[in-house]
Amino acid sequence: MVTRRVDLRSDTVTKPTEAMRAAMATAEVDDDVLGVDPAAFRLESEVAEVTGKEAGLFVSSGTMGNLISVLVHCDTRGSEVILGDDSHIHIYENGGVSTIGGVHPRPVKNNEDGTMDIGSIEAAIRDPRGELLYPTTRLICLENSHANSGGRCLSAEYTDRVGKLAKKHGLKLHIDGARIFNASVALGVPVNRLVQAADSVSVCLSKGLGAPVGSVIVGSKSFIAKARILRKTLGGGMRQVGFICAAAFVALKENIEKLEGDHKKAKILAEGLNQIKGLRVDVAAVETNIINVEIGEDSKFTAEQLYKNLEEHGVLVMTKGQSRMRIVLHHQISSSDVQYTLSCFQQAFPGCKKKTATKLEAGTPLTIR
Amino acid sequence: MVTRRVDLRSDTVTKPTEAMRAAMATAEVDDDVLGVDPAAFRLESEVAEVTGKEAGLFVSSGTMGNLISVLVHCDTRGSEVILGDDSHIHIYENGGVSTIGGVHPRPVKNNEDGTMDIGSIEAAIRDPRGELLYPTTRLICLENSHANSGGRCLSAEYTDRVGKLAKKHGLKLHIDGARIFNASVALGVPVNRLVQAADSVSVCLSKGLGAPVGSVIVGSKSFIAKARILRKTLGGGMRQVGFICAAAFVALKENIEKLEGDHKKAKILAEGLNQIKGLRVDVAAVETNIINVEIGEDSKFTAEQLYKNLEEHGVLVMTKGQSRMRIVLHHQISSSDVQYTLSCFQQAFPGCKKKTATKLEAGTPLTIR
Amino acid sequence: MVTRRVDLRSDTVTKPTEAMRAAMATAEVDDDVLGVDPAAFRLESEVAEVTGKEAGLFVSSGTMGNLISVLVHCDTRGSEVILGDDSHIHIYENGGVSTIGGVHPRPVKNNEDGTMDIGSIEAAIRDPRGELLYPTTRLICLENSHANSGGRCLSAEYTDRVGKLAKKHGLKLHIDGARIFNASVALGVPVNRLVQAADSVSVCLSKGLGAPVGSVIVGSKSFIAKARILRKTLGGGMRQVGFICAAAFVALKENIEKLEGDHKKAKILAEGLNQIKGLRVDVAAVETNIINVEIGEDSKFTAEQLYKNLEEHGVLVMTKGQSRMRIVLHHQISSSDVQYTLSCFQQAFPGCKKKTATKLEAGTPLTIR
Amino acid sequence: MVTRRVDLRSDTVTKPTEAMRAAMATAEVDDDVLGVDPAAFRLESEVAEVTGKEAGLFVSSGTMGNLISVLVHCDTRGSEVILGDDSHIHIYENGGVSTIGGVHPRPVKNNEDGTMDIGSIEAAIRDPRGELLYPTTRLICLENSHANSGGRCLSAEYTDRVGKLAKKHGLKLHIDGARIFNASVALGVPVNRLVQAADSVSVCLSKGLGAPVGSVIVGSKSFIAKARILRKTLGGGMRQVGFICAAAFVALKENIEKLEGDHKKAKILAEGLNQIKGLRVDVAAVETNIINVEIGEDSKFTAEQLYKNLEEHGVLVMTKGQSRMRIVLHHQISSSDVQYTLSCFQQAFPGCKKKTATKLEAGTPLTIR
Repeated sequence: MVTRRVDLRSDTVTKPTEAMRAAMATAEVDDDVLGVDPAAFRLESEVAEVTGKEAGLFVSSGTMGNLISVLVHCDTRGSEVILGDDSHIHIYENGGVSTIGGVHPRPVKNNEDGTMDIGSIEAAIRDPRGELLYPTTRLICLENSHANSGGRCLSAEYTDRVGKLAKKHGLKLHIDGARIFNASVALGVPVNRLVQAADSVSVCLSKGLGAPVGSVIVGSKSFIAKARILRKTLGGGMRQVGFICAAAFVALKENIEKLEGDHKKAKILAEGLNQIKGLRVDVAAVETNIINVEIGEDSKFTAEQLYKNLEEHGVLVMTKGQSRMRIVLHHQISSSDVQYTLSCFQQAFPGCKKKTATKLEAGTPLTIR
Repeated sequence: MVTRRVDLRSDTVTKPTEAMRAAMATAEVDDDVLGVDPAAFRLESEVAEVTGKEAGLFVSSGTMGNLISVLVHCDTRGSEVILGDDSHIHIYENGGVSTIGGVHPRPVKNNEDGTMDIGSIEAAIRDPRGELLYPTTRLICLENSHANSGGRCLSAEYTDRVGKLAKKHGLKLHIDGARIFNASVALGVPVNRLVQAADSVSVCLSKGLGAPVGSVIVGSKSFIAKARILRKTLGGGMRQVGFICAAAFVALKENIEKLEGDHKKAKILAEGLNQIKGLRVDVAAVETNIINVEIGEDSKFTAEQLYKNLEEHGVLVMTKGQSRMRIVLHHQISSSDVQYTLSCFQQAFPGCKKKTATKLEAGTPLTIR
Repeated sequence: MVTRRVDLRSDTVTKPTEAMRAAMATAEVDDDVLGVDPAAFRLESEVAEVTGKEAGLFVSSGTMGNLISVLVHCDTRGSEVILGDDSHIHIYENGGVSTIGGVHPRPVKNNEDGTMDIGSIEAAIRDPRGELLYPTTRLICLENSHANSGGRCLSAEYTDRVGKLAKKHGLKLHIDGARIFNASVALGVPVNRLVQAADSVSVCLSKGLGAPVGSVIVGSKSFIAKARILRKTLGGGMRQVGFICAAAFVALKENIEKLEGDHKKAKILAEGLNQIKGLRVDVAAVETNIINVEIGEDSKFTAEQLYKNLEEHGVLVMTKGQSRMRIVLHHQISSSDVQYTLSCFQQAFPGCKKKTATKLEAGTPLTIR
Repeated sequence: MVTRRVDLRSDTVTKPTEAMRAAMATAEVDDDVLGVDPAAFRLESEVAEVTGKEAGLFVSSGTMGNLISVLVHCDTRGSEVILGDDSHIHIYENGGVSTIGGVHPRPVKNNEDGTMDIGSIEAAIRDPRGELLYPTTRLICLENSHANSGGRCLSAEYTDRVGKLAKKHGLKLHIDGARIFNASVALGVPVNRLVQAADSVSVCLSKGLGAPVGSVIVGSKSFIAKARILRKTLGGGMRQVGFICAAAFVALKENIEKLEGDHKKAKILAEGLNQIKGLRVDVAAVETNIINVEIGEDSKFTAEQLYKNLEEHGVLVMTKGQSRMRIVLHHQISSSDVQYTLSCFQQAFPGCKKKTATKLEAGTPLTIR
């Protein structure tokens, strides 16, 4: 019988706090489709300010935020978007940019750290003189932090370089900032600096920040005006949406400071898992709240089997193919949960402690203990 | 200075009740994208049961409900949907079926009562032998009650006939039931009977029922499974959506019984307005909570001017073109609000009382006083 | 055994003339995708001149011409096109504007003469202030001559009025001129005058003009530049296309003058058919080369049965539903073929000569004998 | 003054032969949209037989052939196609699969020889259990010979392995066989063997085979029936298309045997160019009629400058970015043209003969001289 449950599948599984419930119970709301919901407006303004953009728009998910952003920038038939071949938009959003928006994706190889080589991006930009053969490049998308790489962060400098490239070629830059606050905290750089070069950003409030629902996209006023129309077209306009905006506002105000703790716990757990023979974690690459665990070929488990073993002890993780797992920390995972999780893994691999832990890369000191 | 505000623009403007707020504050929620939010499940099941369908899916708006339904039924390239030329989907949903879904609409003339002639529908169904020239008809859409006709209701018999026609030709039938509860109450026929012939129905909870946000689409289990995927693609998947589902559940349980009062107030207001010289209302056509007001050509006002005049007194309505207004009653409009509204109209047309009110059509007795 | 064959299904069935074959055999051609085929250029220039437009582009069919034209004018997501509810684009082109182009059609009722009421067109134009609910109207399409109305012609004055309306609202005007030369000949008005108000025209050369393949779209240079890209996207770019352009050039030069004869024969045949009891033809409405025949409800034949009866005698026509037929004249139908066809019809309805022929409308004198 | 012209930009630039002109002048044709053109039918049947498929369909270009094929296999909203990241479909066809068809491309890295690793293809196939997040993989596309790799050939064995993988996962396999005859000749393997595993193939007749216009797609009868409808939707249906089919039939019958000569000339030219200091050609990789030339960084020319220098002498090639050129041989390039071209290059790089030519890879003996 499971007596304990530690849900590490995603940071979307957090339960709303009492403060959020209270905010919902008392929120002043109105019809946001008519543009008069004060709670929605307050949240949108706040996110716009935090990100240094002119305006914001609440949307029901990060997927909608990205879809709308890509479609607004690529509003003309024959548009192409350059994005990471391992990016969330390309891999996990149902191919919506094409199947819903008719936009042609031009994926560029994602490096292990979530970047794409600047040269590769530039090489992928279409020569406008080839318009008889080529779609028209209109947009570059980055993702910060980059989920599939294990939550690694793009520096402000890297983003600036991509932004400069975009400008040079008359392109727009969108940042999928589903976990931009994690990146900001990990890098010690304010969000508005991190996204300074971007024309639009999609920011999730229901991941690490723990809001029940929603994301906000930010950009120029004219971008947001077009985004508002497209949100309506997709059916994403909601009437008294202020309730969930009020909860999200609390998330934004109260939970950013919790992210650092999530990152520390992720490091500790990563370190512990990496000492188990049969598993491998690139501890230095655990920059935020996500851990990619590789299960050695010599392991007695497939990812599926290990998943089931852990589930029996109430520990929920996600499998990625046959030999990888993803673990995501969030503010409702305690230090004790981390220790419990580690012990469940250890028990699955009895007597498998490595003699020496994987050597950490130089220049990546572990300040945690 | 406006001291009173009567918002008759739509039944979407209702403010959530205390009971709804309380439900939100205490709702048990979880990650609905992972399919485990109990409050969402409870609402979806309830609406499925009320409508007599196998399963339901919460969506953020009626527009999303219709868009998903049409796209699921028309999932193959080259599909055509038959729908009313004055239907909400064709007129007010940004053309999303085409611009997002690539579905070709084949509008059929809407009669004044919101029906389409059965013969006209059948004539619009494409002959499959003409597939080299024709798209493939896959779906017929009805709307009950029918907004643009002034909220008139389609009978169960009419719907059955369309359903029979659809079956005969291997088509699906979708009902835009944004205000299906209004139709049910006005006709005195249970909702499940009204939509018996339909393969899918989109039901709004944030219109007359007063929920803050949302609609539920219902249909077979396989329809809902496909709808769930498409909802995710559009970005309509929401994490702890149970909060708003909990409020919507209250709306469903508590507010259906209020609709009859809305209809009565609509009749009274319609009758009063029709006695003003310069205005014309087809009182007999006011079957539910919507009033279409025509401003006579001899009136001293355009719709725009009359709108402004009323707005100064806190009465908000919607204009439809140069010479028409739409008024929508809802449970937060009191009898006193109705009288106040009437007096504001009367004051705009001083001395304009008609000698005789427009004769009501036979067979439409006004039981209200 | 059929000893004679009279193909009246369409004016697309003409066989190329010897002059066309000779032109093909000697045409100087090159790679048109690289933009250097002289025969293509000559044809495009000629059609541009005849229609009074800046530039032209050869396309493989009228359907492609219309599809490209609509898509170029509606190149932004969320566009709507106003067109006749009985127009070729809406009825017979597979719904391509939506299913391929994602453009939302807004059909307006076609009158019996192929026009749409100007007021109805204007009422269908979306108010830009309603952009949250409405797609954006970008284009109006006319069809001249109008196939489904039986080849009736739109006057230059009517077209001008629609053009003026389009300009007033910032819209474009496209004319489906599949049979614009028939309209020109019938009205006695030069083509460039007929399409003066249009931003683009699609002109078929393989209908009445008898070219083996192809249409030309004309418009401004920038329109054609965009059309060229879209043609390539659709796969409509052809290498040494000059061969078929050379044949089409002959059609343009030699066959316009044959159209008047087609119209006369159509009148004679229409007149003859209308004298058969059981059939009805609106002879006055036969303005060009198309005859719509209605089979009376008291007829002993369905359209299908009559079709088969005629086919046995080598006379091929098209059925339109249960009780209508379409007959199309072209330059390879001789006067003798017309007489033969009439006799086949008469023999199908023995003893059915009407006492009096349907009275022709005033103002439509029959100059033919 | 240019006295000689050697057009090496593509094998699409060939001029039709006298035999083709004669075939056009005498072709028996009819209305192919009505499905009765004998010359079209003969060509389609012949290509179907040569490729070992049930049926064929003439289309106006390779781009249309690929577009239709991908769209027929991916006829349901939410489909994904796996294809080479350097494939013609992904790079040179305007992104039509997405921008016209709404299909999501999932590019997999093309190796230098035009293959994709089988493991990489399999890794890109979506797990159907992830349908909430993933589009549905429906199709794998190969390209044989592979243009961007310099015309390298995929073996029958490789293709079979991909076909087996496709079957295992319930996917279709399409081959872009624009130059499948070149591959067949180079490999010494019949075309039907090369495409045995494919569900559809697009075969160009206007490239190396020298037909003026057109491609044929082949597949099962049901595939072709759907392709025919889609061709009509795109506007690719052509009336008396038999003329160009008749010419293409000649190309198919007379010109396959010329391909071996093209390949030999390509080898000779490649070898000669590679001996010029400042240029680099992977001679062993010149398997068919395409040569990729790299211009060394130490060269005094950019690709653009070298292009202009050659053009002045009447030699036309294509540039690919700053430092690469593409040269394509075809049957209208004589041995003398090859020598002339080589001398023009040599003269652009005076005194630049390499002491030793690049060593050819083992196992790739040059049998030509």
